[in-house]
Amino acid sequence: MTRNPTLLCCVYPEQKVIALSSISNPIRLGVAGLGRAFALSAPAIHAHPGVNLVAGAEPNSEHRRSFETTFGAKTYADVRDLVTDPDVEAVYVSTPHGLHKEHALAAINAGKSVLIEKPMTVSLEDASSLIEAAKKAGVQIIVGPSHSFDGPVKLAEALIAEGKIGRVRMIHALYATDFLYRPRTAAELSTDLGGGVVFSQAVHQIDLVRRLAAVPAQRVTARTGGAWDADRPTEGAYSMLIDFSEGVYASLTYSGYAHFDGDRLMENTAELGIPKSDEFKSARKILESVQDESEFKSSRGFSSLETCPQAQTHEHFGQVFVFGDRGDLRLTPNGVEITDTNGPEFYPAPFRTARAEVFDTLYAAVREQTTPLQDGKWGRASLEICHALLTSSETGDTVTLNYQEG
Amino acid sequence: MTRNPTLLCCVYPEQKVIALSSISNPIRLGVAGLGRAFALSAPAIHAHPGVNLVAGAEPNSEHRRSFETTFGAKTYADVRDLVTDPDVEAVYVSTPHGLHKEHALAAINAGKSVLIEKPMTVSLEDASSLIEAAKKAGVQIIVGPSHSFDGPVKLAEALIAEGKIGRVRMIHALYATDFLYRPRTAAELSTDLGGGVVFSQAVHQIDLVRRLAAVPAQRVTARTGGAWDADRPTEGAYSMLIDFSEGVYASLTYSGYAHFDGDRLMENTAELGIPKSDEFKSARKILESVQDESEFKSSRGFSSLETCPQAQTHEHFGQVFVFGDRGDLRLTPNGVEITDTNGPEFYPAPFRTARAEVFDTLYAAVREQTTPLQDGKWGRASLEICHALLTSSETGDTVTLNYQEG
Repeated sequence: MTRNPTLLCCVYPEQKVIALSSISNPIRLGVAGLGRAFALSAPAIHAHPGVNLVAGAEPNSEHRRSFETTFGAKTYADVRDLVTDPDVEAVYVSTPHGLHKEHALAAINAGKSVLIEKPMTVSLEDASSLIEAAKKAGVQIIVGPSHSFDGPVKLAEALIAEGKIGRVRMIHALYATDFLYRPRTAAELSTDLGGGVVFSQAVHQIDLVRRLAAVPAQRVTARTGGAWDADRPTEGAYSMLIDFSEGVYASLTYSGYAHFDGDRLMENTAELGIPKSDEFKSARKILESVQDESEFKSSRGFSSLETCPQAQTHEHFGQVFVFGDRGDLRLTPNGVEITDTNGPEFYPAPFRTARAEVFDTLYAAVREQTTPLQDGKWGRASLEICHALLTSSETGDTVTLNYQEG
Repeated sequence: MTRNPTLLCCVYPEQKVIALSSISNPIRLGVAGLGRAFALSAPAIHAHPGVNLVAGAEPNSEHRRSFETTFGAKTYADVRDLVTDPDVEAVYVSTPHGLHKEHALAAINAGKSVLIEKPMTVSLEDASSLIEAAKKAGVQIIVGPSHSFDGPVKLAEALIAEGKIGRVRMIHALYATDFLYRPRTAAELSTDLGGGVVFSQAVHQIDLVRRLAAVPAQRVTARTGGAWDADRPTEGAYSMLIDFSEGVYASLTYSGYAHFDGDRLMENTAELGIPKSDEFKSARKILESVQDESEFKSSRGFSSLETCPQAQTHEHFGQVFVFGDRGDLRLTPNGVEITDTNGPEFYPAPFRTARAEVFDTLYAAVREQTTPLQDGKWGRASLEICHALLTSSETGDTVTLNYQEG
């Protein structure tokens, strides 16, 4: 694989454009965790002229060796050694959710900016402590990748800001997947440890809906499905109403128990931007053939760039509509469709690699000191909505939010 | 147009089958209101061997003349004369929402069973008084047509009862239309008079979701969009969470302000079961060319069977998913798709005419004294959810329901 350093950053209206072709000083990135999360981002990092992988940390020696071979970079068994490596300038925290706080804090305290996989932490207190620590250390937090970075979401935000659909009034999001039946570690099936669809999946939908609403969320009313399968005792589905300021409201529904393939509503394109065949695959059936699920999951960590998913379109997170006064907006894996009184019009979102926008943002934050949209406070705000989702479903009440402004 | 008396009622598992071919004594039906609502049902009534139109009442003399000519039936200017006509055995109340109570009560007090267009009344008190009166008079109330009668909904109910998707857990419904920009009378744009999308459209979605849930609703949390267009000052959109018993919950979203055509999610088939062309039509633009909107609306009443919409598939009310333990169910204009671990399977719903199921139900209720699912208490329960929708949106609180059980 070779990079194409002449690629230019996508030009979105009213947003800062970085001429990637002019980058002479890429960020020296260290990766904490070489598991599945990193494998999903590796192609984008490799292709991005603004980022160089210089080190990785991972307890699994096989994934370490694959990383060394692929990137010619050093590895550590322990994250503490990675974050204090003077060659490492910024750290991508892609360890399991329950370890984000410890690993991000170690990096921040070593004076490194961090890109933290969503959710940034499991508890709100931990999120606050990271924000505080980053402020003291003068470093940046970026929470991602999440689907709020997807090219079509970014384009939609810009088109809405331009006034293409008038005032945003109502947002609707629906996704149905087999998330709960993909191979999982025990932690991924424990809500307390940040498992289940609320911390892993709702956070995506919340993130992208917040970006499209562009005003602060205020209250949450939600119901979860948590007891549909006693063998996998965590939340697997939810419906949620979010009240935003200015009367905007959003309805978000997700099932990770689904048999129906929600990608059929998205031009038969998988969440990771890969066209699907018509052949039906049942995650439940595949899972039945797996002997040791946790071991199988861990085998899906990084092994080579060739075996990483190769997106052919932008990633997506299912059906999303934004209803405005003068038009309605719909996301597709390739861009944005806006229907107004003249009918539907499609706006393609320029595509380099999936997740390119995440590393554009990292580069701009670290090299140009721009404050990313998805900073620590943003990540905490989305996390607060995850907790509100759980609390509202438990109590039956509407939950008022406290961490949404600024 | 000729009838085909050899048609048989669709056979749904575990449901009563009426052999339509054996009907020798059709119900002598009188119609109160020969406007748009009747025009939409006229083809189904005409085609149904169990119903004979014998009289109509309507202030508009032009519609009266069309009715007389088409059906060789008498007409009255005043509903009171229709309901006391001894030739009239049952009355279809298809007058404006605000008049349902008065007209249905007149028919009931004259000892006639009534088929009342949804919503059965505007206020809950009026609904209760109709239920009480019908009980005293020993006559039946059926509330419909509504999309809960649609063939695919009926088939879905039967397939769910058979256990095809296991236990129902979560329901999701979404529809986007230009409802608010079709020509409207002043009353249709006044919530107090039963106008707006809550009384006209939510009631459909509520009705069909209740039928699919098959357990009583308990609480409602909702938000409406009511101020998006100051020129049409009634609710035009909403999102709603309904808690049902046994932990089932549903998310319902509707926009009648939409530019996006929700029929695109339903195989490009219009709500009334008519395939759509790809040509985009803006209801807002068409409305701009109308001089007197209220007069234009009234001109859309009954004029001939040929000008009534002729369904080619079942009617529908947009995207509907039922998520169950063992499979997920999706409605289409032609039937039901169920996806389980073996993949999607399509179950066609036998089609005679759109709305045939409504008149099957009327026939069975009047001739065979079966209690219809969509009886007075059912209609009041759906109406209560409409009011809860409005109240919850006004107060921001979750509303507990009181009229949902039996």
